[in-house]
Amino acid sequence: MEQLKQRIRSEGIVISDKILKVDSFLNHQVDPQLMHDIGTEFARRFADSWVTKILTLESSGIAPALMTGLALRVPVVFAKKRIPSTLTQGFYRTSVFSYTKQETTELIVAERFLGPADTVLIIDDFLANGEAARGLTDIVTRSGAALAGIGIVIEKSFQPGGALLRERGLRVDALVRISRLAPGDIEFDEEAR
Amino acid sequence: MEQLKQRIRSEGIVISDKILKVDSFLNHQVDPQLMHDIGTEFARRFADSWVTKILTLESSGIAPALMTGLALRVPVVFAKKRIPSTLTQGFYRTSVFSYTKQETTELIVAERFLGPADTVLIIDDFLANGEAARGLTDIVTRSGAALAGIGIVIEKSFQPGGALLRERGLRVDALVRISRLAPGDIEFDEEAR
Repeated sequence: MEQLKQRIRSEGIVISDKILKVDSFLNHQVDPQLMHDIGTEFARRFADSWVTKILTLESSGIAPALMTGLALRVPVVFAKKRIPSTLTQGFYRTSVFSYTKQETTELIVAERFLGPADTVLIIDDFLANGEAARGLTDIVTRSGAALAGIGIVIEKSFQPGGALLRERGLRVDALVRISRLAPGDIEFDEEAR
Repeated sequence: MEQLKQRIRSEGIVISDKILKVDSFLNHQVDPQLMHDIGTEFARRFADSWVTKILTLESSGIAPALMTGLALRVPVVFAKKRIPSTLTQGFYRTSVFSYTKQETTELIVAERFLGPADTVLIIDDFLANGEAARGLTDIVTRSGAALAGIGIVIEKSFQPGGALLRERGLRVDALVRISRLAPGDIEFDEEAR
C-alpha cells in the first residue's frame, strides 16, 4: 500500500533495530482518512471471505479494525486487557506476552460476541513476534468460529511472528512489510501477498 | 439522537442504578455504522467551531472520536493511560480518578500533538462524574490550545459530571442523556443541547 509506505518514510522514527515509532498517524495521533483507506484495502483483500466479524485488541488495533468493519459492514469486537466491571457473563480469556513491554497481558472477549456461526477477520496495527495475533487466534478457535485470516497494517518481517502464523497455515495479509530498521533507514519488502 | 436511544433501549442492560452496559455496540463490540453516524452528528454540531483536532482517551473513546475526525477531516489524538516505550520526547500528564474502577489513572499526551494553534473537540463515550473529561480539559489548557467543547455519546445526567463542566462555562454536547436507571427501565432526558 503505497500511501502507507510514504507516510512511514516521511513520519516514521526508527527508535532501535526493532522499534519503529509511527505515533503521528497510527497509534497515538491517528489520521482518520488514512485509517479509512486502510479499512477499504483490508475489505478489498478479504471481500470473498464471507467475514461476519472483525476481532482486534485495545487500543491501537481499534482504529484500523473499525474502518475495516465499516467497509465490510460487520461488527468489530475488541479484546479487553482486563475484565470490565460490566462483564458479568461468560468470556474467553487467554494470555499473551508483550516483548516490547516485557510483561504478560490477558485478552478477554465476551462469549456472546463470538460463536460457531462467525467467520472472523483479525486486524492489528503491528505484527512482530506474533503474540497478540496468536492470542486472538486462540480465542477464535475456542469460540468455534472460522478464521478468515489476519490483516496487519505494518509487519516487521525480520521478526518471527509472520512466519510462525503462516507455518500454521493461516492467511496473514500485511499492508506493508518492513525487512530492516536502521538509524534513519527503513527497508521495505516488496508488497505483501 | 433517536437511533442511539433505540439501540440503548433494545440492547442496553441496567447493571445497577449507576451502571448501564452497552457493550454490544459501543465499548466491547462496536457497530461501525452507528459510530459513523455518531461522528457525523458530532461534526454537524461542531461544524462552526473551526476544530483542528479531536482528543479522546483509550480505549472506548477511540471509535466515536475516530469517526468524528473522519467527518471533520482532522486528526484524532488519544490520551494513553501509560507512557509508551516509544514516547521519548515531552508529554502532558494528568491524573484522573475512575469511580467505576475505584482507581487513579494517568492520562498522557505527547506535547508535539497539541499546541496553541489548535482548537480541540474532546469526545468520549460516557459522561458520569466527569473525571476523564476534566483530565482531558486540563491537558488542553496546559497545551495552550483552545477548547471548542466536549462531545459525549451517553451522558448520565443524574451524576454530577455534566453540571460541573457546564458550570465552568464549557460547552458539553451529549447525543443522549439518561436521567435515571432502574431495573429494566432507562429514562431519557429530552434531547440534549
